[in-house]
Amino acid sequence: MDKYIVVQKFGGSSVANIDRIKAVAKRIVESKTKNNHLVVVVSAMGDTTDEIEEMAYAVSKNPPEREMDMLMSTGEQISCALLAIAVKELGHKAISFTGNQVGIRTDKSHTKARIETISGQRIHQALAEGKIVIVAGYQGVTEDNDITTLGRGGSDLTAVALAQALKARVCEIFTDVEGVYTTDPRIVPSAKKIKTITFDEMLEMASLGAQVMQARSIEVAKKYNIPIHVRSSFSKEEGTMIVETTDKIESIAVTGITSNTKEAKITICAVPDQPGIAAQIFTEVSKTGAVVDTIVQNVSHTKLTDISFTVPKNELAKALTAAKKIARKINAGEVLHDKNIARVSVVGSGMRAHHGIAAKMFQTLAKNKINIDMISTSEISISCIIKETEAANAVKALHKVFELERI
Amino acid sequence: MDKYIVVQKFGGSSVANIDRIKAVAKRIVESKTKNNHLVVVVSAMGDTTDEIEEMAYAVSKNPPEREMDMLMSTGEQISCALLAIAVKELGHKAISFTGNQVGIRTDKSHTKARIETISGQRIHQALAEGKIVIVAGYQGVTEDNDITTLGRGGSDLTAVALAQALKARVCEIFTDVEGVYTTDPRIVPSAKKIKTITFDEMLEMASLGAQVMQARSIEVAKKYNIPIHVRSSFSKEEGTMIVETTDKIESIAVTGITSNTKEAKITICAVPDQPGIAAQIFTEVSKTGAVVDTIVQNVSHTKLTDISFTVPKNELAKALTAAKKIARKINAGEVLHDKNIARVSVVGSGMRAHHGIAAKMFQTLAKNKINIDMISTSEISISCIIKETEAANAVKALHKVFELERI
Repeated sequence: MDKYIVVQKFGGSSVANIDRIKAVAKRIVESKTKNNHLVVVVSAMGDTTDEIEEMAYAVSKNPPEREMDMLMSTGEQISCALLAIAVKELGHKAISFTGNQVGIRTDKSHTKARIETISGQRIHQALAEGKIVIVAGYQGVTEDNDITTLGRGGSDLTAVALAQALKARVCEIFTDVEGVYTTDPRIVPSAKKIKTITFDEMLEMASLGAQVMQARSIEVAKKYNIPIHVRSSFSKEEGTMIVETTDKIESIAVTGITSNTKEAKITICAVPDQPGIAAQIFTEVSKTGAVVDTIVQNVSHTKLTDISFTVPKNELAKALTAAKKIARKINAGEVLHDKNIARVSVVGSGMRAHHGIAAKMFQTLAKNKINIDMISTSEISISCIIKETEAANAVKALHKVFELERI
Repeated sequence: MDKYIVVQKFGGSSVANIDRIKAVAKRIVESKTKNNHLVVVVSAMGDTTDEIEEMAYAVSKNPPEREMDMLMSTGEQISCALLAIAVKELGHKAISFTGNQVGIRTDKSHTKARIETISGQRIHQALAEGKIVIVAGYQGVTEDNDITTLGRGGSDLTAVALAQALKARVCEIFTDVEGVYTTDPRIVPSAKKIKTITFDEMLEMASLGAQVMQARSIEVAKKYNIPIHVRSSFSKEEGTMIVETTDKIESIAVTGITSNTKEAKITICAVPDQPGIAAQIFTEVSKTGAVVDTIVQNVSHTKLTDISFTVPKNELAKALTAAKKIARKINAGEVLHDKNIARVSVVGSGMRAHHGIAAKMFQTLAKNKINIDMISTSEISISCIIKETEAANAVKALHKVFELERI
């Protein structure tokens, strides 16, 4: 019988020092059974990537991206070689590979490359020889043999893409938390670990601030339906399974509550309500490189309307400059901004079948005297922009009212 | 007119930190003229290699060599990327390459690989685009795409091999000394920098302890007749040219004096004087991995003879064990050893034409009451093993008597 393949990914904090690398090696060896093959993806040790990056910026404020990739890819090369040494030290066969060596072919967008194909030939060969395969995460190679990197958090992507290419049974993401929680346990100590969550829910959770896994990797996992198991590298507990659909007979309406205090709000007042105006505004803002998240424009009863949107706090300055410029150009009114906001969201694919979730959320906030500034919804989430100082209270109240402690 | 190619190599101390990397970048840019193309080979920054090696040995006392190469090659990858960034920062075109990317194909002897071929295709292409090419030293790749390293000091070899493959006009080795000296300036302050030295002389100097350049690289340079310019990365002074023959009408008898206190001596007394005995002894010793240097066996007038040889001090213990074992087996006598020895040598290709160099050397040592323990000679050198404590005096006296201060 053919063995099935398991892909495991260990992040930077899991391999931050020699002792942790040894612990990960032990963990890997324990995961190896008669029935499975193991392919392990590893990030750079702890802060290595930051340290290397600092050196580059000490040489140049604007280091060329091709050279940055040459530089930054060494962190993962070091950790994967050390991990292979540690696994061999435990008496098991192991071999480390760079992105190049396992044929992770990417496009030429240095520092944010996209994986095009994975040959995996050397991996299959090494697995057939009974070796545990350790792959440097976060990197690939162009058709010209130039080294590329996949962007921060790219090791998750390497793991998911390898799981797809190798037809792995599961992709295990080892991290420093026990799994995905109903909300941030630092805010709500009674938050529960979620056993199973859908890709769609996880995507909402990830993009809304639960920083367990990179959203791009979840999208790939969803596209190819690769089950993900997010779990702790420091404990043996089962973590959270991310899958296509959960098999509960009655889906729960709300799976989790997230909050995000990293955004700021800009409002352009008294915008002439004409076709094409929104396009003009957001073309100008996106030129600055600022990433706009929520946009809210309400129906106007006059010829004028207000348009609000959020951007990451550290991009507020440039977005604001652009907003003021375009406001003058289109004869809009004042441009307001507020850094002290939070987005609080309820997420759950059960929402599709349940009514009244929005109403319950708004009532709960009202009962707690929390004013709602902006509202936006997706198919499986409802988000409210509120005052930053009220975020924790809002999360606690929502977590309770949607009975997430009982999951 | 075709431009000629210059290969420059900068060692670890030349790129030990960000400021030095910037200084090297400036130096490189100044070396670029209308008429030349530059290919720069760079070692790992300062102690990086040692630090990485330490990590590996913290994981395993016996790390597998393939993984060590994976690990150790990152040091040069970091420094070549940083140097390329620094050159670009000065407004010049530059590109960094790993050994793999420039097609430095080696055999599979991990940690001490031998270069088989260099394709150089990407280098020619980059040079044609007007770029300064920066190559990671010390590394190559096997036909299976596994990373190899060339052994300590391997960046010299990368530089010389590239100079050969690219038909460079000269290979400049930048180091932390001004060039090759008539003897160690720390022992004899009046030691002079040698302007020109032959490959053969340099080979004697290198293997006898003048640690300017790796002997293996000089052998390759000699084989392909590649002129080497050893010079300081911290000054603009011309250094020492290493060439096939010097064009002096009257060659000087002695070019330099070297001393080496890193060896220990073993003597096996009363060895039965029979054919095959020496072979037995040195087969046994070499099995321990100890590198035997000088061997002296004198003509015997009886049926017994003494055989002496030197080994590196740190290999004395195992060589001694082997010597005692074989001595018992062949019914030889006592096995003596001495750690406190020095080898003092006079080197010069002019020796071939001059008589009396040996006599002059022995007289000088005698006049200074320095006892000679062992003597060995090559075509262009004479070496005496003396007491370690007398090494400095011997070098001073010889430097003076052969008039090297007047070079």
